[in-house]
Amino acid sequence: MDTTPTPDPGHGYAAHKEQLLKRLRRAEGQVRGVAKMVEEDRYCIDVLTQISALRAALDKVALGLVEDHVRHCMVKGNEQDRLGRADELVQSIGRLVR
Amino acid sequence: MDTTPTPDPGHGYAAHKEQLLKRLRRAEGQVRGVAKMVEEDRYCIDVLTQISALRAALDKVALGLVEDHVRHCMVKGNEQDRLGRADELVQSIGRLVR
Amino acid sequence: MDTTPTPDPGHGYAAHKEQLLKRLRRAEGQVRGVAKMVEEDRYCIDVLTQISALRAALDKVALGLVEDHVRHCMVKGNEQDRLGRADELVQSIGRLVR
Amino acid sequence: MDTTPTPDPGHGYAAHKEQLLKRLRRAEGQVRGVAKMVEEDRYCIDVLTQISALRAALDKVALGLVEDHVRHCMVKGNEQDRLGRADELVQSIGRLVR
Repeated sequence: MDTTPTPDPGHGYAAHKEQLLKRLRRAEGQVRGVAKMVEEDRYCIDVLTQISALRAALDKVALGLVEDHVRHCMVKGNEQDRLGRADELVQSIGRLVR
Repeated sequence: MDTTPTPDPGHGYAAHKEQLLKRLRRAEGQVRGVAKMVEEDRYCIDVLTQISALRAALDKVALGLVEDHVRHCMVKGNEQDRLGRADELVQSIGRLVR
Repeated sequence: MDTTPTPDPGHGYAAHKEQLLKRLRRAEGQVRGVAKMVEEDRYCIDVLTQISALRAALDKVALGLVEDHVRHCMVKGNEQDRLGRADELVQSIGRLVR
Repeated sequence: MDTTPTPDPGHGYAAHKEQLLKRLRRAEGQVRGVAKMVEEDRYCIDVLTQISALRAALDKVALGLVEDHVRHCMVKGNEQDRLGRADELVQSIGRLVR
């Protein structure tokens, strides 16, 4: 049993965890909705519109995580920790931008 | 009885329907996987990496649909039909690019 | 000397050529403006804001070209030509989306 | 004489200034190259390919700036400063992702 209050960087989104899970459940429903449209042979442009909406929703989730992480890693930890996280963060942003 | 060879734009992805549904089921599993990571308080950078992978998977689905649609709407239908679909397609691409 | 009015696919944007050139000249000015900001050691977030504006301007140029091309290649040429252009177009869109 | 360790946020990219300016000059040349292609009525797909290359080059510049900024604002300044910059950074990333 771990009860020590170690600085756990995984808790950057702790305050928004429920909101995050709600958004992800909604995104899951959106993916199912897209699959249903395909099953029903719906018009491809309409399917694409729904995929774009899903992508926008996921981008919002991702940016929320980036925000929590930036606000977290800029505040907690010492300089050395922050430098290490900076590299991870930049790589992560690079994957989102491309 | 309809025997005219009317273009049915909904069937642009007919040939890839099973592949498309398989990809969407996988994407649904990916969203659930991301939600599980959040539930388990996993490190936000790792969650972001999975969201980027999910986004890339959805982009692939979207581009597959665009491909089917372009190949379909450029072949079937008369000039008038194609012009109408061109506008839809361009708007749809605009939503994907931004 | 080539005087034959062959269907030249390069003329998809002929009607918008002046508008296109004007936008590109403006984009060139924007790049120079960003360089000037860097030379003057301006704040990096402000430089990033200008790069985002430039990117949005270039996306608009790209989407305008896609629109002209789609409207062109869906109307001109025979089925065979259109199929060939469809592949190019989809690859081109793929490069824009990623 | 200023001996206070005030954080100067404008110097995040100081170490890469020359590289940055070189990249921006190259990007300026790329925009001019695209304009020349349009003037010469080159094929729109080829123009689009060059615009995609230009966009990729600008994304690289932007990510370099983000990296310098993150490494800078995570190291210099006090907690209060870092929190303020965190918001700016997240907004800036949001503009790049969309």
